[in-house]
Amino acid sequence: MIINKKENVLILGAGPVGSLLAILFKKKGFEVSIYEKRNDVRKAAGYKGRSINIALSQRGWTALEKVGLKEEIMQVSLPMYGRMIHKEDGLTDFQPYSSVGDAIYSVARSDVNKLLIDAAEKHGVQFHFDQNCKRIDLKTNSLYFRNSINELTTINNPEVCIAADGAYSVLRTELVKHEAVNYSQAYLEHGYKEIHLPATAKGAWQLKKDALHIWPRKSFMLIALPNMDGSFTCTLFLQKKGQVAFEKLRSTADIQSFFELYFADIVGLIPDLATQFMENPTGSLVTIKCEPWSRTVGKSHYTLVGDAAHAITPFYGQGMNSGFEDATKLSDLIADQHRDWENIFTQFEQSRIGNTNAIADMAYQNFIEMRDGVTDANYLAKKKVEEEIKRKNPHWKNKYELVSFSDKAYSEIQHYYNKYDAVFNAFLAGEIDFDSLCEVIS
Amino acid sequence: MIINKKENVLILGAGPVGSLLAILFKKKGFEVSIYEKRNDVRKAAGYKGRSINIALSQRGWTALEKVGLKEEIMQVSLPMYGRMIHKEDGLTDFQPYSSVGDAIYSVARSDVNKLLIDAAEKHGVQFHFDQNCKRIDLKTNSLYFRNSINELTTINNPEVCIAADGAYSVLRTELVKHEAVNYSQAYLEHGYKEIHLPATAKGAWQLKKDALHIWPRKSFMLIALPNMDGSFTCTLFLQKKGQVAFEKLRSTADIQSFFELYFADIVGLIPDLATQFMENPTGSLVTIKCEPWSRTVGKSHYTLVGDAAHAITPFYGQGMNSGFEDATKLSDLIADQHRDWENIFTQFEQSRIGNTNAIADMAYQNFIEMRDGVTDANYLAKKKVEEEIKRKNPHWKNKYELVSFSDKAYSEIQHYYNKYDAVFNAFLAGEIDFDSLCEVIS
Repeated sequence: MIINKKENVLILGAGPVGSLLAILFKKKGFEVSIYEKRNDVRKAAGYKGRSINIALSQRGWTALEKVGLKEEIMQVSLPMYGRMIHKEDGLTDFQPYSSVGDAIYSVARSDVNKLLIDAAEKHGVQFHFDQNCKRIDLKTNSLYFRNSINELTTINNPEVCIAADGAYSVLRTELVKHEAVNYSQAYLEHGYKEIHLPATAKGAWQLKKDALHIWPRKSFMLIALPNMDGSFTCTLFLQKKGQVAFEKLRSTADIQSFFELYFADIVGLIPDLATQFMENPTGSLVTIKCEPWSRTVGKSHYTLVGDAAHAITPFYGQGMNSGFEDATKLSDLIADQHRDWENIFTQFEQSRIGNTNAIADMAYQNFIEMRDGVTDANYLAKKKVEEEIKRKNPHWKNKYELVSFSDKAYSEIQHYYNKYDAVFNAFLAGEIDFDSLCEVIS
Repeated sequence: MIINKKENVLILGAGPVGSLLAILFKKKGFEVSIYEKRNDVRKAAGYKGRSINIALSQRGWTALEKVGLKEEIMQVSLPMYGRMIHKEDGLTDFQPYSSVGDAIYSVARSDVNKLLIDAAEKHGVQFHFDQNCKRIDLKTNSLYFRNSINELTTINNPEVCIAADGAYSVLRTELVKHEAVNYSQAYLEHGYKEIHLPATAKGAWQLKKDALHIWPRKSFMLIALPNMDGSFTCTLFLQKKGQVAFEKLRSTADIQSFFELYFADIVGLIPDLATQFMENPTGSLVTIKCEPWSRTVGKSHYTLVGDAAHAITPFYGQGMNSGFEDATKLSDLIADQHRDWENIFTQFEQSRIGNTNAIADMAYQNFIEMRDGVTDANYLAKKKVEEEIKRKNPHWKNKYELVSFSDKAYSEIQHYYNKYDAVFNAFLAGEIDFDSLCEVIS
């Protein structure tokens, strides 16, 4: 089947970002169709052993509010008001995210996705599931799809094609073959593995339910986020190779003693720990940067959004939030009757790329902070001083708060905190006094 | 045609690095075959408007000596003993590369390539020209080739496959699709264009023949290297976009006035300047880094070498030299009877990647130095001090000399000069005296 008809807007990927974008474009009056590799997530059984819950924060809610889904998704989300630190000695320490009760929200990715697809369908978005985009050829201006029974579909000369097809984007794979496209993919030495921590027989949570749990162990860490059914999803971030590493954890005995040594307080809560560990895959963590995101071919306009443009590590919980922010910013650039797409996509990238590069860097830095900083003397001293600053200036927000509980541009936050760190260190070294510190950083 | 027979060593690319490597492996007793996309360069007409001459320096000669071709290639090479700086006011300034008459050598890439292919054939290397490797599939362990009349050849399960297939390597394209492969491609904002500066009617050189000519103009520059036939190949490095940029040079008048303004002393020497400028393509300049270079699939061992592993900008004249050094280092790791390829390739990469990353960075830094540093007061002050140091210690070599006139590891040179720069700046700032400077850097 060859489709030459011009749909107004063709979106690749029916994940949360693609589906949200589809609603926003439909609301602007465009015809929107989505081609998705997988089957309809609403009909599929849940994922197993892959990232199944995510943390929604301010930017995500801002976007969901725009499409009227904030309340509905809030219903299936659990607030986490701070970090519950599980120390090696078995003691715990709850660190609230803010002094005014701000929370990030644990939610199943599939729940968010299903509600967005439902809403998009209600708005009249055309979904084409089981359409695996095998290749995009920008020379011939064609997209080639194959479904699970090997039927081929070709789309030629799309008016607008927006790739929300994730970290392994087919459009990006094609773009980076062209001259003057800068690109990098950088993998962490750490991989990750998910472990399901079940609810009690009565369906209760076995750990404090309204916190993000962290077991910081310097070069590695375990985290746990609550699910609606009383379970937690734990994720172990650990080096793939080395002395303490995934490669060393092969047998039931290896795994059991590793957990008993480092995470003694939860070993008893997960009966099939070793089985899960051996069955679940070990994922990779990659940061992807690409530039430019867009390309015009004849009268066709292509761009990347979300993970396709800027896949980041999960340590700031900003992957989906930043993708949602992409979608709203892109939609905001479109006046209803105005379709100068080349200009729109260029403006979109210019307004976003500094921000997405900033959150990529900050996400990695937060990994360092989470895995060892949260128990570090300097980190704790800093937290104390931040509390002092807040007493003086209750509206002041720290870095985590600005990223998670505001819509302030990521690049501005990064810039501000680079400056702030220098001044803060000057204060700790006794070079400036507290009043000067407050003056500079306010 | 499907080839399942195991050749000992399969090399992709019959360029200078691939051909040299083939000889080195043949001398170690392996069966070697080369598959090359293009037709036999010995039968083809010369390139037009593409990088046709290169600068051979110590590392290149070390490699060529190993295969007995040093004298033969020296015969078709022209020594350049220093930089001839053409200033904006029309004055020139010759800056020798060293105090002891060291030279880098201008040579046609095709001449080097032809002599290497001839030699490889004499050693019994099997060449397969017009075999375009369209795709490598590491899952099925297959290489797919197509020739110009669309005949297909598949090679399955190669024992050893070494990709010397350049900056757009087919093997690397496949490798980077896999998890845990780090990769970056970074384009300069500058493009380049070649201009042929002809010999006089009597076949004489119109500029000083034994120098590398540079017209440094801060944000851009022109260089010229001599050819054996009395001509020079000039290369303009200029931003693609901006106030003074390729995009602004569209008409004959634009081009003529640009050259008259900035390169007045050669405008009269190139009668068809504007025609050449419009006909010759504008090339891109890219730095490519990838890691790891090698992969074992079943009993097949793959690795990248040369530009395929680490394409760099041309500003240190080290692209082919570093590729040749790869080839000799790889060959040195192979004991005749010993074929633990996985181990050999891992050792190869470990010994080389720090060095190839270092020369990539130094090449870019040299661009800054060439285009504005060579006329810069600080640069000239530094040169003067270096002369003083040499008077005190005649064996001391500066950075350019170590890169070009020694076989010292690039990473050691970079490390040493990072330290040296700091000490040198301390000396210029009056913080340490000359004797201390000499002591630290010797």
